Amino acid sequence: MFKADIATLFPEMCESVLNCSILKRAKEFNLVDIKTHNIRNYSTDKHKKVDDYPYGGGRGMLMMADPIYRCYEFVKKNRKEDLKVIYLSPQGKVLTQQKIIELVKSKNPIFLLCGHYEGVDQRVLDLIVDEEISIGDYVLTGGELGALVLLDSMVRLIPGVLGDDECFLNESHYNGMLEYPQYTRPEVWNNLKVPEILLSGNHKKIKEWKEQKAIKITKKKRPDMLK
Amino acid sequence: MFKADIATLFPEMCESVLNCSILKRAKEFNLVDIKTHNIRNYSTDKHKKVDDYPYGGGRGMLMMADPIYRCYEFVKKNRKEDLKVIYLSPQGKVLTQQKIIELVKSKNPIFLLCGHYEGVDQRVLDLIVDEEISIGDYVLTGGELGALVLLDSMVRLIPGVLGDDECFLNESHYNGMLEYPQYTRPEVWNNLKVPEILLSGNHKKIKEWKEQKAIKITKKKRPDMLK
Repeated sequence: MFKADIATLFPEMCESVLNCSILKRAKEFNLVDIKTHNIRNYSTDKHKKVDDYPYGGGRGMLMMADPIYRCYEFVKKNRKEDLKVIYLSPQGKVLTQQKIIELVKSKNPIFLLCGHYEGVDQRVLDLIVDEEISIGDYVLTGGELGALVLLDSMVRLIPGVLGDDECFLNESHYNGMLEYPQYTRPEVWNNLKVPEILLSGNHKKIKEWKEQKAIKITKKKRPDMLK
Repeated sequence: MFKADIATLFPEMCESVLNCSILKRAKEFNLVDIKTHNIRNYSTDKHKKVDDYPYGGGRGMLMMADPIYRCYEFVKKNRKEDLKVIYLSPQGKVLTQQKIIELVKSKNPIFLLCGHYEGVDQRVLDLIVDEEISIGDYVLTGGELGALVLLDSMVRLIPGVLGDDECFLNESHYNGMLEYPQYTRPEVWNNLKVPEILLSGNHKKIKEWKEQKAIKITKKKRPDMLK
């Protein structure tokens, strides 16, 4: 079974998303075991402190090493397995579908560490992190949305999560190109008609039309894919 | 004030994230007005149907044009302004920080359309969408996480949302390079010491150390940034 743990200061942000859509379905089908852990609960400080000022000056607060490490140790003990630790970070390698396909096959439970504030004490990163991943070239407030993006894209690839009538592969692509435009009922909506050809029942012609449209859209939006 | 509307079939997924962290703070400070709309509520079908089979065959279901268009019309009337409509789509231009900076200055309220299932009837996309955006080169189940990524990265740039001691700019970068490693209390943790130099109080030396470290990390992780 696919196992993952999210270590975060904002567990409620993650849990609500895990209880929606396919992440919820995967859980209900018993296909995944995803847990959320509040790093604050692992602070041994009486005020449950989790951050402090950076040594050597600089703006903002850093997340302290100890609560993160205790959380990691707890999860490792609980899972009874070594963890694959991923730190969501703007310094990480930019995520691709290829990486998702590789990660979902991981034999070890995945431990997703979500940073917040100005970052995390380097010592705990050096000690536990296997891989740093960035979901894109933009700045977010914390790692939570990145962790959820990773989980959503991984979980949908697990056999049984999506139905037979849903696509397992990259639905945005068609024979290595972007997908042709699609239409559904009604035939005429807002004075706009569905292209005649799609109503013709002529499968050969429909296939040709789809191919032509895919080429046209790809030329316009992603010419690099046609090379 | 920054205004945005999310049109989605999973409003609860969005609302819980909007009620956390800086998105929550921005709302409490009255700096943003972000609303979530359930597309299903705009279906005129007695079963509140929102999807149907694609014309011309193909797997999966498509979101129908009409409920989306009614939702858009409602929001436009409600905002009393033209909307900037963004469709979160794997066919869109890949999001960058530059795009975020541009979008947050938008004079029109931003309408974020989240697709699900196999996609959306092309007619409504042709009619209302100004821009298609993808948050990265990977496949997600729907547009919701993309919409939330966009909002998080935009909202944190709005003056007053982040405190004075927090960074407004790209904290992962330092003089055009990746950031140096950071450390916080305690000085010795798990037998690991904070680098001496950061405790020295010698600001000139600390600055030099940070620069050297930034160069080293950038060389290792993002050599392209040094060119």
